[in-house]
Amino acid sequence: MASTFLKEYDKLLARYKEMIVLRTAGDIVYWDMETKMPPSGLELRSEQLSLIGLINHKMLVDPKIGRSLDALEKERVLADMNEEQRRNVHLMRKYHDEESKLPDQLVAEMSKQQILSVGAWKRAKAAKDFSQFRDHLLKNVELKEKAANILMEVKGTRTPYDALLDIYEPGMTTERISKVFKGMRDGLMRIMKKVDSSDRPDTSILNRKIPVSAQRRISAVAMRFIGYETSGPKAWGRLDETEHPFSNGYYTDVRITTHYHEDNYKSSLFSVLHEGGHALYEHNLPAEWMFQPIGSAASYGVHESQSRFVENMVGRSPEFLSFILPKLKKAAGKVLADVELEDFVRAVNMAEPSKIRIEADEITYGLHIIARFELERDLFAGRLRVDELPQAWNEKYSRYLGVDVDNDSEGVMQDTHWAGGSFGYFPSYALGNLYGGMFLRKLDRDVPEWRDAVAEGNYAPVGGWLAENVHSRGNLYDPADLIKVVTGEGLNIKPFLDYLKMKVEMVYGS
Amino acid sequence: MASTFLKEYDKLLARYKEMIVLRTAGDIVYWDMETKMPPSGLELRSEQLSLIGLINHKMLVDPKIGRSLDALEKERVLADMNEEQRRNVHLMRKYHDEESKLPDQLVAEMSKQQILSVGAWKRAKAAKDFSQFRDHLLKNVELKEKAANILMEVKGTRTPYDALLDIYEPGMTTERISKVFKGMRDGLMRIMKKVDSSDRPDTSILNRKIPVSAQRRISAVAMRFIGYETSGPKAWGRLDETEHPFSNGYYTDVRITTHYHEDNYKSSLFSVLHEGGHALYEHNLPAEWMFQPIGSAASYGVHESQSRFVENMVGRSPEFLSFILPKLKKAAGKVLADVELEDFVRAVNMAEPSKIRIEADEITYGLHIIARFELERDLFAGRLRVDELPQAWNEKYSRYLGVDVDNDSEGVMQDTHWAGGSFGYFPSYALGNLYGGMFLRKLDRDVPEWRDAVAEGNYAPVGGWLAENVHSRGNLYDPADLIKVVTGEGLNIKPFLDYLKMKVEMVYGS
Repeated sequence: MASTFLKEYDKLLARYKEMIVLRTAGDIVYWDMETKMPPSGLELRSEQLSLIGLINHKMLVDPKIGRSLDALEKERVLADMNEEQRRNVHLMRKYHDEESKLPDQLVAEMSKQQILSVGAWKRAKAAKDFSQFRDHLLKNVELKEKAANILMEVKGTRTPYDALLDIYEPGMTTERISKVFKGMRDGLMRIMKKVDSSDRPDTSILNRKIPVSAQRRISAVAMRFIGYETSGPKAWGRLDETEHPFSNGYYTDVRITTHYHEDNYKSSLFSVLHEGGHALYEHNLPAEWMFQPIGSAASYGVHESQSRFVENMVGRSPEFLSFILPKLKKAAGKVLADVELEDFVRAVNMAEPSKIRIEADEITYGLHIIARFELERDLFAGRLRVDELPQAWNEKYSRYLGVDVDNDSEGVMQDTHWAGGSFGYFPSYALGNLYGGMFLRKLDRDVPEWRDAVAEGNYAPVGGWLAENVHSRGNLYDPADLIKVVTGEGLNIKPFLDYLKMKVEMVYGS
Repeated sequence: MASTFLKEYDKLLARYKEMIVLRTAGDIVYWDMETKMPPSGLELRSEQLSLIGLINHKMLVDPKIGRSLDALEKERVLADMNEEQRRNVHLMRKYHDEESKLPDQLVAEMSKQQILSVGAWKRAKAAKDFSQFRDHLLKNVELKEKAANILMEVKGTRTPYDALLDIYEPGMTTERISKVFKGMRDGLMRIMKKVDSSDRPDTSILNRKIPVSAQRRISAVAMRFIGYETSGPKAWGRLDETEHPFSNGYYTDVRITTHYHEDNYKSSLFSVLHEGGHALYEHNLPAEWMFQPIGSAASYGVHESQSRFVENMVGRSPEFLSFILPKLKKAAGKVLADVELEDFVRAVNMAEPSKIRIEADEITYGLHIIARFELERDLFAGRLRVDELPQAWNEKYSRYLGVDVDNDSEGVMQDTHWAGGSFGYFPSYALGNLYGGMFLRKLDRDVPEWRDAVAEGNYAPVGGWLAENVHSRGNLYDPADLIKVVTGEGLNIKPFLDYLKMKVEMVYGS
């Protein structure tokens, strides 16, 4: 009995391994496109990437996988399995069903439409003219609604939008997020009131020119600090330069990129920490789970919690800044000689409402996300039409952030996500912040000395805690359960809001 | 009728395209392994490469391909096809049969054994002890004999070794090569007699230290000279650094690597020209044949003819050397200030018998290859046993090159080819030289002014001629036919030997 199930289970895992191996090969091919490929190779490259995607799709929807799963999902068989095996079966079922139930024609139509939409979005954004994007966005939404309706049945979610959320944040629902984000929104707006009534710190010290070569040395310091290894015989990472920073890879080969701006040295420093946080998560997944479904991140939100933890909770802490400032001064020559730590901490942590999400600070960032979530939610609930989006966007930005959007390029068209069909993705960013707040509170309790260590350039107490509590659990739990296992409580906005209040007191005084 | 065949034909080409797209993705993954991969990624990387190989194998042996080919190979159908279509069908049949007829178990056993053999070869070579390699080599030969016997039937060759030759040099036979190489061997030995009785040029100027940064500038000059584009929006290549130089890629993305030795600047210069010659061939294949079987190089030998043409016939010509020497002097600062062109030409073209193939000059190189060919041929004809190989090797080196081999590491174990199971590969290197000689003679007749142009830094007459006469023909012909189409005559050793005689006169006087 047990041995029969084991045989079937192992067969299934072997098939899954092939998909992972092929996907990680695709990651390299993608990475190469972004970093090394000569421009003429673009067309061939897109053929390569879509073929790899297609082969993976075919592997995943193979009816044999469904039959193996059927055999394993019998109650008696499940009873013989341990927690990890059951979770692997659960995840493989989820992936197989999600991928199988969408008709090939719909998938093809969506991916074709998304390419067209991204093209139209680029043109419309350049022309600051939403009308050039409108039809494509509408088509995107219609196709996504079709898919969401199918996925809703497969997943058994209450609404189509829930099914989309579940892709990025398994188990998370519109209802839950609405409630959480409402509290978060009000909290963030209260905090921003305090900020608005205070004096703005001087951030000009962050725009002093530092040559790229010096910034590269600082990147190396930051990577060494978090233990991201890019040299020597045991290196498992590398840093390259791209227009937009990203990370990708798997276990033994996880890469990050950054972008250097001469007049904005904090950009590369914090992007290295951010992408490094992502990379450490992938690298620290349990080695014995490699090639298994559980040997992966728990969700986009949890991934984002790890990058933001390293970037913000550690990287923007006075302790880390006190460690890095002398090194920055040394690398920059005389340019930063007169900068005081206190001013540096205030400048780096300055908060200010803005129109553009990717330029937002830690506090207002959540408001950008919440606006997008509310719009997506209403769109997929039929309460909002695509034609009403620009206006609705501007109203939310005025209400939540107090900013006037001049045109749709800096408004509803600022992000690529909707053009690319990624509805349901945005909430993960803000959930990542909330998860991070909860992890921080637990870390403060478990390892109160972590701040002193960071000030001395020692990341080990933080890194060890994250590895042990988060990374080592891979995809054994849905995010909400993971949070509970790690912190002992359910999703809670308070730790993150408390953390931000502390920040504001630090920067703007009490 | 015609439309039915076209439909079937197009279906087949679409399948073939998938294999090419996947293979070229694998090329990128391989390139990354050699150039950019962090060391910890090696194990995952070998999984990725073998999976891509396996998927390609499965695609190629799919019985549906055999059935489509059956339908297309009817006489009436073939009569409706043009030359290109017929050649595509021929090549797909060849690839499909070669890949299908070998039992999976044999293929798996060979690839496993080859990995073991390469491991044993490395250890044995380090220990200078053939006995540690012997059993593995024997096993390699036995397995290859099995495969060759099967391939002989598929291909309809006269002998098993012919079937192996045909993998690398389609249509070439043991009988033909034996005859050609005998003449080549005698010719090369005659030329070397003349060299041996002359004064050795001073080659110390080639070992003056030139910093890697300066050598990189020379690489850029060499690449610009041949039109290998690595920068700008239309770039289709790039240069990186690896232990052993290589090239790979397809049409719009073809990459080369080199290795810089501070005390041997000619090494990087000529490897850039050599790999650049390979790259130009791949890049200049007819765009309309991309993803078709005919959109590929004609053979390993023809590929090698292109790399050597650029490296030797152009790169070691007095005209190119007169163009590059001033640039070398400028890049190197004072180090080469006193070097006279005449001495430089003589040093670069110096010939001298040696024990190691990859260090050999243009003249003796063929002798290294011919020795290997004769040994392989006799091995697979049952006239030579693995145990007798070391002794037989040493005797040939003594006879053909006049050198005494001290130990088997610099003798029979110097190359990785036999450990890796690549029997039948070596002859392509020397055939490449012969093809190159024939192309050179034709080029001299068609475009006699090419040398003057090269002296002025203008590669266009040579590059244009090679593109038009060789590259543009892709894989439309087997190599022997290609040679005939290009030069108007059959394979002939005289042009290459004449070329070498001219070299010797130039270097050693008449």
